[in-house]
Amino acid sequence: MIKVAVIGASGYTGSELLRLLTLHPDAEVVEATSRQYRGMPVPEIFPALRGFYDGLAFSEPADLKGVGADVAFCALPHGASQDAVAALLHAGCKVIDLSADFRLREAEVYRAWYGEHKMEGLLKEAVYGLPELHRNEIAGARLVANPGCYPTGAALALAPALKEGVIDAASIIIDSKSGVSGAGRGASLDSSFVEVAGGFKAYKVGCHRHTPEIEQELGAIAGEKISVTFTPHLLPTPRGILTTAYARLKKGVNTARLHEVYSGFYASEPFVRVLPEGRFPDIKEVRCSNYCDIGVYADVVRGRMIVVSAIDNLVKGASGQAVQNMNIVSGLKEDKGLKTPPTPF
Amino acid sequence: MIKVAVIGASGYTGSELLRLLTLHPDAEVVEATSRQYRGMPVPEIFPALRGFYDGLAFSEPADLKGVGADVAFCALPHGASQDAVAALLHAGCKVIDLSADFRLREAEVYRAWYGEHKMEGLLKEAVYGLPELHRNEIAGARLVANPGCYPTGAALALAPALKEGVIDAASIIIDSKSGVSGAGRGASLDSSFVEVAGGFKAYKVGCHRHTPEIEQELGAIAGEKISVTFTPHLLPTPRGILTTAYARLKKGVNTARLHEVYSGFYASEPFVRVLPEGRFPDIKEVRCSNYCDIGVYADVVRGRMIVVSAIDNLVKGASGQAVQNMNIVSGLKEDKGLKTPPTPF
Amino acid sequence: MIKVAVIGASGYTGSELLRLLTLHPDAEVVEATSRQYRGMPVPEIFPALRGFYDGLAFSEPADLKGVGADVAFCALPHGASQDAVAALLHAGCKVIDLSADFRLREAEVYRAWYGEHKMEGLLKEAVYGLPELHRNEIAGARLVANPGCYPTGAALALAPALKEGVIDAASIIIDSKSGVSGAGRGASLDSSFVEVAGGFKAYKVGCHRHTPEIEQELGAIAGEKISVTFTPHLLPTPRGILTTAYARLKKGVNTARLHEVYSGFYASEPFVRVLPEGRFPDIKEVRCSNYCDIGVYADVVRGRMIVVSAIDNLVKGASGQAVQNMNIVSGLKEDKGLKTPPTPF
Amino acid sequence: MIKVAVIGASGYTGSELLRLLTLHPDAEVVEATSRQYRGMPVPEIFPALRGFYDGLAFSEPADLKGVGADVAFCALPHGASQDAVAALLHAGCKVIDLSADFRLREAEVYRAWYGEHKMEGLLKEAVYGLPELHRNEIAGARLVANPGCYPTGAALALAPALKEGVIDAASIIIDSKSGVSGAGRGASLDSSFVEVAGGFKAYKVGCHRHTPEIEQELGAIAGEKISVTFTPHLLPTPRGILTTAYARLKKGVNTARLHEVYSGFYASEPFVRVLPEGRFPDIKEVRCSNYCDIGVYADVVRGRMIVVSAIDNLVKGASGQAVQNMNIVSGLKEDKGLKTPPTPF
Repeated sequence: MIKVAVIGASGYTGSELLRLLTLHPDAEVVEATSRQYRGMPVPEIFPALRGFYDGLAFSEPADLKGVGADVAFCALPHGASQDAVAALLHAGCKVIDLSADFRLREAEVYRAWYGEHKMEGLLKEAVYGLPELHRNEIAGARLVANPGCYPTGAALALAPALKEGVIDAASIIIDSKSGVSGAGRGASLDSSFVEVAGGFKAYKVGCHRHTPEIEQELGAIAGEKISVTFTPHLLPTPRGILTTAYARLKKGVNTARLHEVYSGFYASEPFVRVLPEGRFPDIKEVRCSNYCDIGVYADVVRGRMIVVSAIDNLVKGASGQAVQNMNIVSGLKEDKGLKTPPTPF
Repeated sequence: MIKVAVIGASGYTGSELLRLLTLHPDAEVVEATSRQYRGMPVPEIFPALRGFYDGLAFSEPADLKGVGADVAFCALPHGASQDAVAALLHAGCKVIDLSADFRLREAEVYRAWYGEHKMEGLLKEAVYGLPELHRNEIAGARLVANPGCYPTGAALALAPALKEGVIDAASIIIDSKSGVSGAGRGASLDSSFVEVAGGFKAYKVGCHRHTPEIEQELGAIAGEKISVTFTPHLLPTPRGILTTAYARLKKGVNTARLHEVYSGFYASEPFVRVLPEGRFPDIKEVRCSNYCDIGVYADVVRGRMIVVSAIDNLVKGASGQAVQNMNIVSGLKEDKGLKTPPTPF
Repeated sequence: MIKVAVIGASGYTGSELLRLLTLHPDAEVVEATSRQYRGMPVPEIFPALRGFYDGLAFSEPADLKGVGADVAFCALPHGASQDAVAALLHAGCKVIDLSADFRLREAEVYRAWYGEHKMEGLLKEAVYGLPELHRNEIAGARLVANPGCYPTGAALALAPALKEGVIDAASIIIDSKSGVSGAGRGASLDSSFVEVAGGFKAYKVGCHRHTPEIEQELGAIAGEKISVTFTPHLLPTPRGILTTAYARLKKGVNTARLHEVYSGFYASEPFVRVLPEGRFPDIKEVRCSNYCDIGVYADVVRGRMIVVSAIDNLVKGASGQAVQNMNIVSGLKEDKGLKTPPTPF
Repeated sequence: MIKVAVIGASGYTGSELLRLLTLHPDAEVVEATSRQYRGMPVPEIFPALRGFYDGLAFSEPADLKGVGADVAFCALPHGASQDAVAALLHAGCKVIDLSADFRLREAEVYRAWYGEHKMEGLLKEAVYGLPELHRNEIAGARLVANPGCYPTGAALALAPALKEGVIDAASIIIDSKSGVSGAGRGASLDSSFVEVAGGFKAYKVGCHRHTPEIEQELGAIAGEKISVTFTPHLLPTPRGILTTAYARLKKGVNTARLHEVYSGFYASEPFVRVLPEGRFPDIKEVRCSNYCDIGVYADVVRGRMIVVSAIDNLVKGASGQAVQNMNIVSGLKEDKGLKTPPTPF
């Protein structure tokens, strides 16, 4: 039984970790921290979990170095994560960090988008936790940087085409649409029901912090520096990210060829489902699950690829992928405890 | 491994059965019938299930007598269920019928609300499948009539108070609110997104067919004939039923006493969660789960009890309860494969 | 042209007043105050109003006594409203107060539910602004206490039956369901999209502050002290209140008689629509309008009346009714600028 | 007073026309046809309109040639519109057709996307009813082809940039997201609440019928044949279209310059609101109104323009624009009866 700590357990990624771990046969949550709810029983704050964590109260350890866990999920905000991760590593935990703090390999890029980094030394050690691209490195890692939600959807949508060289890497446009839970759990007018319901908008046009993360991962696949246009939008629904990506196709590539490329690339993946030709994903068909569904189309007349991916931003885009990474670093079967079907409504 | 057939598998209760059974370690779906989708692979119609039933296609057996299943779930519309249930029993299956066809004990009452009954003889044999009230009879049954969604919420909300005699049985008012999936899967203007979103209304005021079913079950508990006022409403959300029930309190009964009555009645129940005093349920906290959450309040000044119950109409109100009944008739642990936490959003 | 001031214009009732007043031919907003947005152009905060109030910025006058308006709408929170109303009256404005501060006639009742009242002297002068019940008093009032949203829906639902004496006044149960905008505009976890979407719950069971207001108005109609059971619920939609009310029927009253009573009572009302027998209201059919739709049913077997009313909580339940009151106190046609049809989706 | 007929008045564009025309001081609906609801009073089918069209019943004239209207709105499905439009013109009406039947100038293109055209002769006469581009031609037209909802959003988003030559016309990608009412009023599983709520998907990828219409209008502005990539998506909300369009920028064009181009182009438009730099539209801020909001951004590093437009698909994208066209062909002030503010929730 793997002993698990969830640091920062009172947000949406934290509560989703708690939910997913009830379904895992080989993991047990021994600590769930929350400054805000310190001392309160978990089901008091998350009534859905009544009956599952009745003996567990949120804690706030003075020093994370004493956490007695095999694996620690760190679900703190970026910035706050850096010290916590260092302490958890010091405590001997394998750490899966869900913040942005260890995703960017270059400290300079981190500084440009997020600010100073106090643990630059750990940046090089951290492995980017997208199993479909970095499975082997993850297996041996002490510190896994769990990918951002948008970068997960974008990288899975574009990796096969870039790897196979069927698109022009300089022409990528990524139009993404996310459910509201991506904004986190908290009091905010912008995330209030009345402001969001019935609305739909683009936000952070040209300046979203996931842009350099997407460029890093796509660049690594393409073997060259890549600049992408990335536009996030806010969907009036709690969960899900749909990513519609566009790129110029290389000559002679049609839908059948694209489908072959994608099906081949993901042939052995437990959580990526390449849809039949002519079918495109819907975020509801991956809801509450760790799946990523992908559909591809080649517009040969206009010479463009259209690829659409769907994930649940809190599962494959955060906590589910974190559990997948836990399985890998712990030597378990990668899909253990995660093979539950989506709930489409 | 229990061999399971799902008859009428292409509606919402059918697809929910298929989803829930992927989580059950001891059951295997060997047949899923659908006239409409005959011959089509299950994941073609329910993309969420891609990867789970890839080898299974919808069938339409000429004769259900040949179904080789230990347990058959019959998820056909009322009326259509009668012949199918008889055939399945003849085939040696234990049958859990999700229609209204075998819920009412009196053929006369059935006729008044639904029309002629072709299998009256089976009415007396059928056991009403609400485990919290009829667990022992269910265990030995060949035919279980799975309760309606509203009656499940109403009976669980009122049973303890009636049993303990703390309310006046003649004074019951049940104000229920259901998500749209209760109307079934199908093309209908009334259930269309644009007509439902942003709306909320009462419907079938004074004439909903679940009224006699509620009266039958509450009457059996009270040991007398009971008439209730029942008003269903349509919520602009896919899932969930919240039932707010009112009754005149017997003298001297306060909230603490009510809470004691309810906590005692449901003390050993795996799927009923009586909330602490002062807390009331929310349909999202039972979403996609088999739980029923209950909160109670005694307005001693006005002499009234207010009790609120929440269920997921497709799980505890239909397919989850059906699996619970399958566990009971099969001699399995009652909560097997069902103990998954709600997904509150 | 009536000069209008909106005090506390940055909440939902304030912004709704601004919206409705663009449709009024004889009113002009000369001042809109907001502490939070002081100095900012109105359309900067409410982009929907771009093109309508381009020359108007939110102000924060040091002293409301200098407000040069004929009519002032006071949309401040309860408590904060008292001083403001006194100052506005002093400035010579007719005041329509949308808070709870002047709705309860008895200072003692106010104290029990809200706390101390600093302007008790004005309580007796204030007229309760439900035109269907108090049109004549409103016409001569300096200070109109605009009714609460729930009390509006409840009073319109029950007034005819109480007035005509066809129900037992001691037996009233009011089960109300409100959209989220009723909670006001502001940052709050409880009102956040993710927490509300897909949910539905009862809240403030047995202790909602609108209870004494409902009892006051129904008691005045019945000519006796009345106690009601009132349970509010939170709908996952921005707007609308549906009220389902129950009461014991006097002998011999059937649906036809009830319908006659209601149709007669509201025969000349510009904003109450009594639906044909067998039809019941839907909140979407009054959306964004000042209408109240009502449907009635007599369950003669069980001896109960069921009456359902629907209003838009921000229009007939707040700002629209306030404009209706402005018309009355200003001697204008009562429906002036308000006769716009609902937008059902 | 203009006498107006609405042909095919029982769909969403028809009912929206009826709603909007209640707000118009100079128009009166004299006929509303519906095969399905023939003989039924309008408010029976559209309860929101109770009190507005109480004397009007849906008709089904044997022969439209006898319609005694000055202006006829034809809101029939494409295909069915052709004969009706011819008959209405014969009857002496000015016709505003909301179907796709007269939008494409080339019969050959119509055939390729929709099938045979029975009234090819009228194609050349019809004027494309986007007032911002074709105001003068509309003024003298007998037959106005009211634009499609997606083409309206796309053309308004791209027209200024194409006209001014600041983008590469061959590089346009249009990613559009529409509310569900765009699918029309009717019974369909795909449009049912449960299937749509919580979902989001691309549909008709690479093959949506609005593509040639967009290409026709953008090509006319650019003065060259244009091919665009157009991907529509289905939003889980009733109303609104957000269009995010991408194109390669000409050298030296920054956001300030783009903003200047757009502000200039739309300087005198009553219904286009170009937002300040750094602000982007939200569909809720144009809800139920005839406005189109636009925001622009130049990513000078990547050399791309991002432009976002928002409209209400049923108003500026259909019935509101139709009324705007009615005003123009009737010699009225263009914004007459349409200058109502959006209802953002």
